[in-house]
Amino acid sequence: MESNKYQSLVTHLLSLAKVQVNGNNPWDIKVSNDRFYKRAVTEVELGLGESYMDGWWDVENLDEMIFRIIRADLQNKVKHNLKVALQLSGFYFINMQARRRSFIIGQKHYDLGNELFQSMLDKRMNYSCAYWKNAASLDEAQENKLELICRKLHLRSGMKILDIGCGWGAFGKYAAEKYGVEVTGITVSKEQVKLGKEMCKGLPVEFKLQDYRDINGKYDRIVSVGMIEHVGYRNYKEYFKIAEKSLNNDGLFLLHTIGEVQSVNKTDAWTHKYIFPNGMLPSIAQLAKAVEGVFVIEDLHNFGADYDKTLMAWYNNFSDSWKNISSKYNDRFYNMWKYFLLSSAGAFRARSKNQLWQIVLSKNGILNGYCSVR
Amino acid sequence: MESNKYQSLVTHLLSLAKVQVNGNNPWDIKVSNDRFYKRAVTEVELGLGESYMDGWWDVENLDEMIFRIIRADLQNKVKHNLKVALQLSGFYFINMQARRRSFIIGQKHYDLGNELFQSMLDKRMNYSCAYWKNAASLDEAQENKLELICRKLHLRSGMKILDIGCGWGAFGKYAAEKYGVEVTGITVSKEQVKLGKEMCKGLPVEFKLQDYRDINGKYDRIVSVGMIEHVGYRNYKEYFKIAEKSLNNDGLFLLHTIGEVQSVNKTDAWTHKYIFPNGMLPSIAQLAKAVEGVFVIEDLHNFGADYDKTLMAWYNNFSDSWKNISSKYNDRFYNMWKYFLLSSAGAFRARSKNQLWQIVLSKNGILNGYCSVR
Repeated sequence: MESNKYQSLVTHLLSLAKVQVNGNNPWDIKVSNDRFYKRAVTEVELGLGESYMDGWWDVENLDEMIFRIIRADLQNKVKHNLKVALQLSGFYFINMQARRRSFIIGQKHYDLGNELFQSMLDKRMNYSCAYWKNAASLDEAQENKLELICRKLHLRSGMKILDIGCGWGAFGKYAAEKYGVEVTGITVSKEQVKLGKEMCKGLPVEFKLQDYRDINGKYDRIVSVGMIEHVGYRNYKEYFKIAEKSLNNDGLFLLHTIGEVQSVNKTDAWTHKYIFPNGMLPSIAQLAKAVEGVFVIEDLHNFGADYDKTLMAWYNNFSDSWKNISSKYNDRFYNMWKYFLLSSAGAFRARSKNQLWQIVLSKNGILNGYCSVR
Repeated sequence: MESNKYQSLVTHLLSLAKVQVNGNNPWDIKVSNDRFYKRAVTEVELGLGESYMDGWWDVENLDEMIFRIIRADLQNKVKHNLKVALQLSGFYFINMQARRRSFIIGQKHYDLGNELFQSMLDKRMNYSCAYWKNAASLDEAQENKLELICRKLHLRSGMKILDIGCGWGAFGKYAAEKYGVEVTGITVSKEQVKLGKEMCKGLPVEFKLQDYRDINGKYDRIVSVGMIEHVGYRNYKEYFKIAEKSLNNDGLFLLHTIGEVQSVNKTDAWTHKYIFPNGMLPSIAQLAKAVEGVFVIEDLHNFGADYDKTLMAWYNNFSDSWKNISSKYNDRFYNMWKYFLLSSAGAFRARSKNQLWQIVLSKNGILNGYCSVR
């Protein structure tokens, strides 16, 4: 394909989402390097993200551009048009190999340094979607989320709780302080254990550097917030069986996860390479199939729109504090992180693809029924 | 297998659920005809139900007996033990054919006569699970359910609503009266159209005798209460696509259905033959897979425990008014109907198998998020 053909194709596709090349709206893309078009066409999500990191294009409101692209279902349109265009041009197989070669390794996400996360997150360091109902700030919205989880789990003083993928212990700290429960948190990040222990000093919150497959013990409640995204669909059944084995018979398990409306088996190439290596987002169909014979689904709450607000708050914090932490990173990292936060915000804003679910599970159904809250 | 072997097997299996043969608890089975044991073993659900209809066994609280059998997961244990026992005895294939022969025809459920349903149901004639939160009577709990649906659908005056499987128009009447909306209800039962039109006289509630595949027109909201149980999993995708096509872009679709925790593709033989010919209960996995690419799941509410209370209320009404309607039926019908209501109540009470879901769906995700209620 000649280079002006790539440009026409990209310009046409973006126009379907009402995004103009070098237009004047805050969501219009400004292209400063014409090699962008070929890279976007032949490497799709990876090309779009990497060329942004390289400064080949910019946009005033990246989140609004991505929102329009996803809401217009452009990704699927791109895939279809591309397949035809690339097969015609003979580029198809070359491209597929190039993408495979790029899948080799990703940077370790949670080793990026606690300082980055401290500057970006709320004061309790929740690295997951907040709940913005009746909240005016990120701090409030994250406390709301923790309170929502505690209420959905019907916590009572003295209960033993397991937190699978506990991060810096935000849930454990809140639940121990407000509900008088004992929490065991597991995580695979040394950085999280170190800072988490500090933050939860004096509270009955234990941290273990442990894979979920090594869990033992019995708990009254289990919570897992933003962790199953790293598990992979092949392991869902095992993950749920381990949780089931660790839960007392009348227990409850609250699963909080990002999801996709369509069942897929891997993440996009850019996210895999730069943000979450080997992550993938579950669908309800995949989760529901995996829990059959293991758990009863008592409740499913979708508040994906709240992740848009959460990510925008994170971006504003990150952007405001960049001057204090920038010496540890470089400009390409800044672009990468900005692209991650704002493109994710736009994706959740679109509502048609990415979702956020809290799912409450019980072992055999709660006798007399389970009561949820919103 | 010798006849005393059947008796030992049944006695053993029931003992796993703490149900004694000829014991003194209200949930213990009283067997008056020894041929019961062979019939229960070789014909499973069909044998259990038909031998009850024939008066071969009885129990003080049928619902409590069934509750214990299901809660103990006895059905699966029976299936496993039976398979072994029957294969050993050489009866396996004979039995399978016998069951297939029994699948030939079912009585038409909704033609049983409006009088039966009028005597059993609430005054608005809701033939689906009520919502018992803060309700003291069946009438209140059914109004609660209708109000819950209206609130989940965010109804506003002037909206056009489609009710797929409208029954006698209970939802249409309530929504038209309380929310000032226009409702089009479709049903395949002439009896329902006739009585429904009478009950909704003077209101903007239209009844159509129509298959869901013949729907046309566009609506602001769709509701379908207790109808997808008749659709069959092979048709789920088509059912949802028809609903999607009939819904305005910012519309909402509330699906209210009984479900099973395990994906299956047919109902049990007794229910098929006597109560709902060709019905089957969906799983969340089946529904979620069918809506992929068609709808976004905004909310899922499980209130299966409320069906226990609803069915017990229906049974009490039915039992109390039997003297007034019995001339139209016979004793075997009474046993059949009692078995249907009480075994269903016990099944919902067990919580581990049958569920009741209200699922709210939108076309591409509601921008700024969907807010549900409980």
